[in-house]
Amino acid sequence: MLKAAIIGATGYTGQELLRLLAQHSEVEVTAVTSRSEIGVKLVDYFPHLIGHYDELSFIDPEDEFLLTCDVIFFATPHGTAHRFVHSFLEKGITVIDLSADFRLKDQALWEQWYKQDHGAPEFIEQAVYGLVEYNREQLKGAKLIAVPGCYPTAVQLAILPALKTGLIQANNIIADCKSGVSGAGRKANIAFLACEATETMKPYALSGHRHEPEIEQGVQLFGNANVPVTFMPHLVPMSRGIEASCYLTLNGEADWQSIYETAYADSHFVKVLAAGASPETKNVRSTNFSHISVQARPEKNQLVVFSVIDNLVKGAAGQAIQCLNECFGFDENQALQAIAVAP
Amino acid sequence: MLKAAIIGATGYTGQELLRLLAQHSEVEVTAVTSRSEIGVKLVDYFPHLIGHYDELSFIDPEDEFLLTCDVIFFATPHGTAHRFVHSFLEKGITVIDLSADFRLKDQALWEQWYKQDHGAPEFIEQAVYGLVEYNREQLKGAKLIAVPGCYPTAVQLAILPALKTGLIQANNIIADCKSGVSGAGRKANIAFLACEATETMKPYALSGHRHEPEIEQGVQLFGNANVPVTFMPHLVPMSRGIEASCYLTLNGEADWQSIYETAYADSHFVKVLAAGASPETKNVRSTNFSHISVQARPEKNQLVVFSVIDNLVKGAAGQAIQCLNECFGFDENQALQAIAVAP
Amino acid sequence: MLKAAIIGATGYTGQELLRLLAQHSEVEVTAVTSRSEIGVKLVDYFPHLIGHYDELSFIDPEDEFLLTCDVIFFATPHGTAHRFVHSFLEKGITVIDLSADFRLKDQALWEQWYKQDHGAPEFIEQAVYGLVEYNREQLKGAKLIAVPGCYPTAVQLAILPALKTGLIQANNIIADCKSGVSGAGRKANIAFLACEATETMKPYALSGHRHEPEIEQGVQLFGNANVPVTFMPHLVPMSRGIEASCYLTLNGEADWQSIYETAYADSHFVKVLAAGASPETKNVRSTNFSHISVQARPEKNQLVVFSVIDNLVKGAAGQAIQCLNECFGFDENQALQAIAVAP
Amino acid sequence: MLKAAIIGATGYTGQELLRLLAQHSEVEVTAVTSRSEIGVKLVDYFPHLIGHYDELSFIDPEDEFLLTCDVIFFATPHGTAHRFVHSFLEKGITVIDLSADFRLKDQALWEQWYKQDHGAPEFIEQAVYGLVEYNREQLKGAKLIAVPGCYPTAVQLAILPALKTGLIQANNIIADCKSGVSGAGRKANIAFLACEATETMKPYALSGHRHEPEIEQGVQLFGNANVPVTFMPHLVPMSRGIEASCYLTLNGEADWQSIYETAYADSHFVKVLAAGASPETKNVRSTNFSHISVQARPEKNQLVVFSVIDNLVKGAAGQAIQCLNECFGFDENQALQAIAVAP
Repeated sequence: MLKAAIIGATGYTGQELLRLLAQHSEVEVTAVTSRSEIGVKLVDYFPHLIGHYDELSFIDPEDEFLLTCDVIFFATPHGTAHRFVHSFLEKGITVIDLSADFRLKDQALWEQWYKQDHGAPEFIEQAVYGLVEYNREQLKGAKLIAVPGCYPTAVQLAILPALKTGLIQANNIIADCKSGVSGAGRKANIAFLACEATETMKPYALSGHRHEPEIEQGVQLFGNANVPVTFMPHLVPMSRGIEASCYLTLNGEADWQSIYETAYADSHFVKVLAAGASPETKNVRSTNFSHISVQARPEKNQLVVFSVIDNLVKGAAGQAIQCLNECFGFDENQALQAIAVAP
Repeated sequence: MLKAAIIGATGYTGQELLRLLAQHSEVEVTAVTSRSEIGVKLVDYFPHLIGHYDELSFIDPEDEFLLTCDVIFFATPHGTAHRFVHSFLEKGITVIDLSADFRLKDQALWEQWYKQDHGAPEFIEQAVYGLVEYNREQLKGAKLIAVPGCYPTAVQLAILPALKTGLIQANNIIADCKSGVSGAGRKANIAFLACEATETMKPYALSGHRHEPEIEQGVQLFGNANVPVTFMPHLVPMSRGIEASCYLTLNGEADWQSIYETAYADSHFVKVLAAGASPETKNVRSTNFSHISVQARPEKNQLVVFSVIDNLVKGAAGQAIQCLNECFGFDENQALQAIAVAP
Repeated sequence: MLKAAIIGATGYTGQELLRLLAQHSEVEVTAVTSRSEIGVKLVDYFPHLIGHYDELSFIDPEDEFLLTCDVIFFATPHGTAHRFVHSFLEKGITVIDLSADFRLKDQALWEQWYKQDHGAPEFIEQAVYGLVEYNREQLKGAKLIAVPGCYPTAVQLAILPALKTGLIQANNIIADCKSGVSGAGRKANIAFLACEATETMKPYALSGHRHEPEIEQGVQLFGNANVPVTFMPHLVPMSRGIEASCYLTLNGEADWQSIYETAYADSHFVKVLAAGASPETKNVRSTNFSHISVQARPEKNQLVVFSVIDNLVKGAAGQAIQCLNECFGFDENQALQAIAVAP
Repeated sequence: MLKAAIIGATGYTGQELLRLLAQHSEVEVTAVTSRSEIGVKLVDYFPHLIGHYDELSFIDPEDEFLLTCDVIFFATPHGTAHRFVHSFLEKGITVIDLSADFRLKDQALWEQWYKQDHGAPEFIEQAVYGLVEYNREQLKGAKLIAVPGCYPTAVQLAILPALKTGLIQANNIIADCKSGVSGAGRKANIAFLACEATETMKPYALSGHRHEPEIEQGVQLFGNANVPVTFMPHLVPMSRGIEASCYLTLNGEADWQSIYETAYADSHFVKVLAAGASPETKNVRSTNFSHISVQARPEKNQLVVFSVIDNLVKGAAGQAIQCLNECFGFDENQALQAIAVAP
């Protein structure tokens, strides 16, 4: 039984790790941290956990108890993991970072987009980018795993099979993406109050979003292509879910449906829908699945690929556990077998 | 491995049985019926089930294959089970009826409220009312189980411990209840369109609702009391969840918090919250739990008890499985262990 | 043309006053205040106002410009108006206070519930409680108006006609009330984030809410009765709207439908629905109307009265303008004529 | 005072015409039709209209009373107006068609997309396309007005100023659009139940949507350009609102902010936001406004233009009234002055 700790367990991704890990037969959560809630019982803070984590209380993120764990999950905003990761890595503890700190291989690019110096550049290279379907082998035994961003997960799953054919023109890919409100995190902010963020939608980060370089890195690394991406995020009034509509310009014809079906034939968590079917976020809500639909419009030289994920599961906590499963040699779908809660 | 069939699997309670039973180690769903979708693959109809029930297709509810099953779940509106139950019971097949057909012991009362003749009065007596916390022993080996209504489950869990003390006056109990929209079922009806049923709320069934006699039956049967109940349902704009606020008039003083804690000390699925804590439907969403809070206001001779459940789980499919577990001697929480999906 | 200022214009009631007053032919908003947004253009802060208030910017609430106004609206939380009201009243400026500061006639009771000393006890007596349908004459020419609370408005409109008959027993009235999230105000608070406050509901203030003494004051003052009230508020996942379900115990029989129709026959903004009709918050959303439905259940000695209002309009800004109209002799429905926005 | 009739008044656009026209000083609604509700009082069917249309009842759409009206609004789905329009036009009655029947100038194209023969091809040419900002002069005195589709309104307002510069490349414009659920109309359909259409989103009409040829017609007619459009609609969980994100490929540099500000400087209902500001549907909800934001990304040769409208107002009933105002010479904003209801 692996002992796991969650750093930053009061946020949505921490909360989701707790939900999912309770079903994992090989992992036990032995510590949860929070700077503001030290000593508070977990079930008092999160009453939906009553009956599952009745004995756990929040501890300080610098508590030495963490060094007795086998796995550390960073469920913190960017800027924390890169400052604290070395103490765990030095002890041989596996670190799974759900934040953005180790996603970009280009340190300068990271520092430019995240507007700070990177505190652990020596670990950037060894960090394994946890897009499991494209990096499965590297994850086995990895000591530091960078769980992909939510949008980059949805977009890369959508566009990589097409890019790998070499039939996509090198002008822009448009990735018009829509996210539920939980993507903004669990913090007091008027803009995300129920009265402000329901019955409305909007684009945001109009001049550029940090997930754009991450997607472009994936285009090169996994797609073997050099195509710029225009990524545009939108906020939609639902708690969970990301939908990515990706527009690619075609260089040639192909049977795109079967290219996609083949690409993901062996992927447990990526399902290519029948031609013409609309992927819908509710069908993957609370699960680690991605549903993908591909639609060629040859008369307009366009290939449109749609993908949906749950931003907190396949876009965060679920993919982190999928990474852990690969890393330690467990079944890929350990703790990830529950069916979508619908309606 | 028990073979189970779900009659009426296109509705919300059928859908929920499918979600939950996929996690049951002792039950396999071998048939799903629908008059309108015969031959359609289940995962084409419900894409959220892809990866779980890929081989199943809808069959006719009168298909003889059903007679090869060990357990039949009726997930139909009231008025169906009482007409078809005999063919299964005669073969010794266990029937778990999620509809209202066998909930009332008084046939005449049933016929008055449900406006039809009862087609199987000979089975009413043997039907076991599946409010597990109050009828656990009777469920063992039962052949016909009447799963309680959603509102009556929430209300009875809230009021029975108080009634059993004998300290409640015999004037009205007010049960002001609020339900999410899934309580209305999955049928084409303008009144429940997203544009009609969101951003609004209302009371309904102003002159009386069928769940009122069911609650009053429970008051007598399990509460050993003879107190009329004014039950008033309200529709609130959320998919799942019931909240019941129950107002009782006090005859005497008592330590209500500890009475409730004692009453449910051994109940896995009923949790009494700390004094003053607000129970919230999201904390039990997608689970079989009920959270209860009790608030005495002695200066007004009032006891107010609040309970929340997920109407599709503890109020329907989850309680049905809890009944099945008791009936067949499985662990009470088989298939019912997942944590609430929040947010 | 009256010159009006809104103190605390960044909140929901201030925002609503701005929306409504733009349609008032006799009032011009000449000042909006905010401590945190001084100098910011109103339309930059609230882009939905573009095209209406393009010239206005926030000023300091202590700016002397306010003394040039004819009417001051306090759209602040409780605890502000009672500290600043004297400077306006001394100059003969009419003050319309949407907060709780002058609602209770009993200073000690106010201080007990609001946990502070009252800073302007000398004005409590002259403050006119602005429940227009019951206090119309007193409002004419009033210099200080206390706009009723949102819940007390809904409850009093529901119960007063019954109480005035003298046919209601003196045991508890139960007022089970449900409010949309805007009732919590526009402030950064995790509990009211979209991810926390949608798809869920709960009771709150279990041990007592400040609106209870206000309702009980109205029972005596306008209902000529001495009946305690158990008021229980609930939070429901919608932005606007309050529904009040009020349970009264009957002392005798009467034609309640016609009693209510008669009571409100001359009220422009209170509509008694046909017998059996469910009042629904969306039908009054964004308007100053209240819809009321009355349901006698003589076999249980019960009278249940339901009312719905928009908490930000009839429960706040709209009623404030209705008060202003009565105060200054304008048409009662000036600025209050728009139809509910539905869906 | 013009006498107006609304054909198909039980749907969302009919309902919205009623809401808005109640504020029009020059128009009186004298008839509402519905095949299914003949004889029913309007306020019984739509209780939110109580106090405004208390005397009106639904009549048969073939009732001769309609011929006494001055203006007929068709608020019907496509396929009705083209069959009935001649009887009104022959009498000299002005027809404002909110459906798609007269939007396309190319009859064959219309018949191909709408899969039926056009019943009134002789009127297609004289029908004036009611995109007021681009067709104002033609509307004066028009006898048949084709109110633009909701999506085409949002997209054309966004892209036309850029197209008119001649600096846009002739490869695809991507118009990724998102609509609230009211766009699906008010009809009983399981797919749009609250439980199905909230907390989820999806693209739809993957292989092509009827609004695409309408947008391409506008590109040529008003944009003087010949650029194909890939239009992709998405359903998002809110009642009202459309957001259009339009991606254009640049041929050259320009000061796009000032091009857009100039283009709409004289438009009362189209507001160009400050550079970098996110347009949000709630800021135009229940109004006839469009908010537009323009973002150049020269390093990627991209111009992204965002626009938001309320699909039922600027995308339907509001624009219809704006057309009527131009047609009859009333103030452009008659009946369209109310501020957005927010929150």
